[in-house]
Amino acid sequence: MRGVVMHASGDVRVEQREDPKIVAPTDAVIRLSATCVCGSDLWPYRGVDEVLRPTPMGHEYAGIVEQVGGEVRNIRPGQFVIGSFFASDNTCEICQAGYQSSCVHRELVGGAQSQYMRVPLADGTLVATPEVPDDELVPSFLAASDVLGTGWFGAVAAQAGPGKTVAVVGDGAVGLLGVLAAKQLGAERIIAMSRHASRQKLALEFGATDLVSERGDAGVERIKELTGGLGAHSVIEAVGTQESMMQAIRSTRPGGHVGYVGVSHDVQLPGQELFFSHVHLHGGPAPVREYLPHLIDLIGNRQIEPGKVFDLELPLEQAAEAYKAMDERRAIKALLRV
Amino acid sequence: MRGVVMHASGDVRVEQREDPKIVAPTDAVIRLSATCVCGSDLWPYRGVDEVLRPTPMGHEYAGIVEQVGGEVRNIRPGQFVIGSFFASDNTCEICQAGYQSSCVHRELVGGAQSQYMRVPLADGTLVATPEVPDDELVPSFLAASDVLGTGWFGAVAAQAGPGKTVAVVGDGAVGLLGVLAAKQLGAERIIAMSRHASRQKLALEFGATDLVSERGDAGVERIKELTGGLGAHSVIEAVGTQESMMQAIRSTRPGGHVGYVGVSHDVQLPGQELFFSHVHLHGGPAPVREYLPHLIDLIGNRQIEPGKVFDLELPLEQAAEAYKAMDERRAIKALLRV
Repeated sequence: MRGVVMHASGDVRVEQREDPKIVAPTDAVIRLSATCVCGSDLWPYRGVDEVLRPTPMGHEYAGIVEQVGGEVRNIRPGQFVIGSFFASDNTCEICQAGYQSSCVHRELVGGAQSQYMRVPLADGTLVATPEVPDDELVPSFLAASDVLGTGWFGAVAAQAGPGKTVAVVGDGAVGLLGVLAAKQLGAERIIAMSRHASRQKLALEFGATDLVSERGDAGVERIKELTGGLGAHSVIEAVGTQESMMQAIRSTRPGGHVGYVGVSHDVQLPGQELFFSHVHLHGGPAPVREYLPHLIDLIGNRQIEPGKVFDLELPLEQAAEAYKAMDERRAIKALLRV
Repeated sequence: MRGVVMHASGDVRVEQREDPKIVAPTDAVIRLSATCVCGSDLWPYRGVDEVLRPTPMGHEYAGIVEQVGGEVRNIRPGQFVIGSFFASDNTCEICQAGYQSSCVHRELVGGAQSQYMRVPLADGTLVATPEVPDDELVPSFLAASDVLGTGWFGAVAAQAGPGKTVAVVGDGAVGLLGVLAAKQLGAERIIAMSRHASRQKLALEFGATDLVSERGDAGVERIKELTGGLGAHSVIEAVGTQESMMQAIRSTRPGGHVGYVGVSHDVQLPGQELFFSHVHLHGGPAPVREYLPHLIDLIGNRQIEPGKVFDLELPLEQAAEAYKAMDERRAIKALLRV
């Protein structure tokens, strides 16, 4: 089969790779309907994370089940399924508490930018749609695999909801879908922090009520001005840098909630400032599995269209261009047709 | 009047100081029934915090109202009152949300280790008991002023409650009262981390079900062993150092809650570890005012006896010895009779 392999920073190739097989009896093999490039794939692409060996890329996936192992009970060949970047058993105490991405048996899923992939713990990891969806719904279902689920977790962790003012730091796909999630969760006011016209436009479509183009301290000041000097009740952090984390913490009122879902890179949080900020801090790798059934409903009923974050669509063979466009911020998020 | 002044690290004196007066019309002046030395007073005493000038000490207080300003409506001379280290209006949006220690008009209260003190924003800050209490109840009411309220906030922030296993890092007065709070909040299992016999004994009296004497990584391992490898649901951090914060975070299961109330000293939290820990982090200066009415009820009805943390009682004039005993860990907490 064909699949994307990163050989070094900036060096992404589509190559012939071995077809995946059932390894454990709890595995499934799926044929991807579409896959995509994640903001976190740009960390190694940009050389921020080291590429130690040629690495099959991709962890966002939706597609048709080809084959299942002998112990798989709930997932059947022919179903259209969505999974997440961490496979989980969905039965352990941590999963039952809603933290499937910290499942005691979790396994990182990789190599999704390809024609086929193996998914471990298929029963716990995959969620099937009621029927095989129309092609036009595939981008939205694919978004549920990570960026939507991650934005949703950010909004949940930030306790976005009725009566709340929510600010969103980061205008990548996750931040934009954090806006959508905050809207769905009933937030009264949603402030998107963005300085890019195309992203601002999408933020407004997804439910943003205010736009702030300032960043850093100036961005914090602007949020304070918009919230009677107090700060937002809920702030979604969707970048993962020191600056964005501090911007999120400082934009939150005492007693408010920061939901941080940008994968932390070289972040050190100053204890004393955090202590006196009085914020709640919660985040980490999103337990997408927890939200998938609800998100699948919302998408299937056409109540949300998270697939709008894909503003570039290319065949799998042109993956290198997809990475390049996202790296240069010409695209918010690139979908790869398989 | 007589009052405690710190001149330099290790140099605590009881001196003649000017009697406090009503300055603002919202002030009250109270005659202290008792005061005490706080664990946080030991930071400057030990030279960890610099003593820039002779500093009147103390921020824990309970006593009789002597005089009130012209705009004070709810507090009357003759009442026995308890207040907290931050004066608050108790009416702003932050106060109403339960974060009085971040009140938009907050003022740090000081000089409580003395015969009299001025309390700003008296109506918002002070809570009166139904009647002037018996002497034997004074230590418990005094404890409510800070250490009990702080331990309580730690337990609330850690979401201690029914069905939960709570671990407490730190066996000072705040940690011990965190145990008491967790018990009152209905926690199923309470693990006190302590290696001192007298503190272990008090922890058990306050409701601890398990004792762990290991610290650091070994302490974390022990908590994991006691919780099926997962970590505690709720961890109260009551020290404020890098080691204790990391011990608290690492002792908490994914999705669990860390309530941190030890004033942070040189703490830097590693973003990536925090991200993947999946814990909720909340803490800061306790909004004691929020809990005072309930705590006063519990004490008045003799349902709790937080005053047991005072294992040394001295007259105000012997404040220097009180500091010394706490510094040398001969006393958990010293009460000063005024």
